[in-house]
Amino acid sequence: MTDPTLATTEPPDDFPYRIGQGFDVHALVPGRPLIIGGVRIPHTHGLLGHSDADVLLHAITDAILGAAALGDIGRHFPDTAAEYAGADSRVLLRAAFARVREAGWRVVNVDATVHAQAPKIGPHAAAMAAHVAADLQVPAGRVNIKAKTNESLGFLGRKEGIAATAVAMLARG
Amino acid sequence: MTDPTLATTEPPDDFPYRIGQGFDVHALVPGRPLIIGGVRIPHTHGLLGHSDADVLLHAITDAILGAAALGDIGRHFPDTAAEYAGADSRVLLRAAFARVREAGWRVVNVDATVHAQAPKIGPHAAAMAAHVAADLQVPAGRVNIKAKTNESLGFLGRKEGIAATAVAMLARG
Amino acid sequence: MTDPTLATTEPPDDFPYRIGQGFDVHALVPGRPLIIGGVRIPHTHGLLGHSDADVLLHAITDAILGAAALGDIGRHFPDTAAEYAGADSRVLLRAAFARVREAGWRVVNVDATVHAQAPKIGPHAAAMAAHVAADLQVPAGRVNIKAKTNESLGFLGRKEGIAATAVAMLARG
Ligand SMILES: [Zn+2]
Ligand SMILES: [Zn+2]
Ligand SMILES: [Zn+2]
Repeated sequence: MTDPTLATTEPPDDFPYRIGQGFDVHALVPGRPLIIGGVRIPHTHGLLGHSDADVLLHAITDAILGAAALGDIGRHFPDTAAEYAGADSRVLLRAAFARVREAGWRVVNVDATVHAQAPKIGPHAAAMAAHVAADLQVPAGRVNIKAKTNESLGFLGRKEGIAATAVAMLARG
Repeated sequence: MTDPTLATTEPPDDFPYRIGQGFDVHALVPGRPLIIGGVRIPHTHGLLGHSDADVLLHAITDAILGAAALGDIGRHFPDTAAEYAGADSRVLLRAAFARVREAGWRVVNVDATVHAQAPKIGPHAAAMAAHVAADLQVPAGRVNIKAKTNESLGFLGRKEGIAATAVAMLARG
Repeated sequence: MTDPTLATTEPPDDFPYRIGQGFDVHALVPGRPLIIGGVRIPHTHGLLGHSDADVLLHAITDAILGAAALGDIGRHFPDTAAEYAGADSRVLLRAAFARVREAGWRVVNVDATVHAQAPKIGPHAAAMAAHVAADLQVPAGRVNIKAKTNESLGFLGRKEGIAATAVAMLARG
């Protein structure tokens, strides 16, 4: 007896899960707002980019697109397109999720890390996770945001930029 | 007919698996022991940190906490807490795993990479994996430790620090 | 009633899936061809390494070996071995996959990112994915290759090297 979900919805050589990963980095510059995970964080510097440069949402967007084998954020939302200038990355995340849904996938969970020497990310992590969970239509307990300094090493440690990494698991449905 | 395990233990929109990821980095300095994956490695330098600075165990701790949506190592074991000064990170890993178990999860597998220009990690990888497997209560064949130099590039290549990355898969049970 | 597949093929404490991750980096130097994902890309520089230095295929090789708990690429294909000098990394990937198959695993999906400030990777991503899918014996829709610049930050941003990251999911079978 085979797994009944598999038997009714997939070819015999396919599987009901996929995983994906995402990375993003933006330069920290004066005179820009700092927006991470849809949270505006008071800080002396902000992230430089064509859209709002939300490094965390971009990494998560790539992770879900990647798991669904839909390419990457640059293919779906080119940073040369005028329509994405200053874009709210939550809108991009929801648009990417819509394409993932159309391809037949739901989100099982997302786990991500914000790599920032400063400012402190931890106090904002729950608010960021709530935004992502809402945009991906999952309960809050299925999105987790972690924070790490780079121990003052490299360009992240010198506060030249902030990076984010993410993994996502999808299930057919 | 739905998956019987799902039918009895989960709401219809939930799934029996989760994935997580973890990253850590510490500076290499003279006058400290080098402890990675619970193995003390003879070397001219060691990792700087509040605890024993076991970069690999910290990355794995974050991966399992992240998969279970329990935040991150900094939330559970603040590096400002006196009780973690010089702490054995295997104790922290086991404490994190206990919280993951309490949340209803078991470990399917862990795969991790130590990013070190020097010393050679490969000869110690099996011992590191054995430690992690024991602490996470899985057979040895479900923890894998890989090693990479950084090809002499960046701060890792200049031996200013050692980093570790990890992914973990959890299953309900 | 337990999952019937589990009941017939696994001990009660095992699971039919595994995940793995991989990372690789090589220095960009003049006078070498640039080969990424088995695609030769016209460029002023190429990647330095013992084999063809295919950074993407090496990261993916590590991800599948890691998920199967088979160690890492350095253990299977030592870069000190004369037989791998100038080796086509697709041959290495297929050899690694053969060992993963012998261990009882199939590939569910692979998602990877090429981290390159230049040249543009996106136009070649589909060809790279097709190579990987063929080598891992999965349909094209189960391998995804993403591209990211490093926003001119760090050694990747200075074009000193190109890195790749990957995750892979395996299923017993
Ligand atoms: Zn971005
Ligand atoms: Zn640490
Ligand atoms: Zn390589």
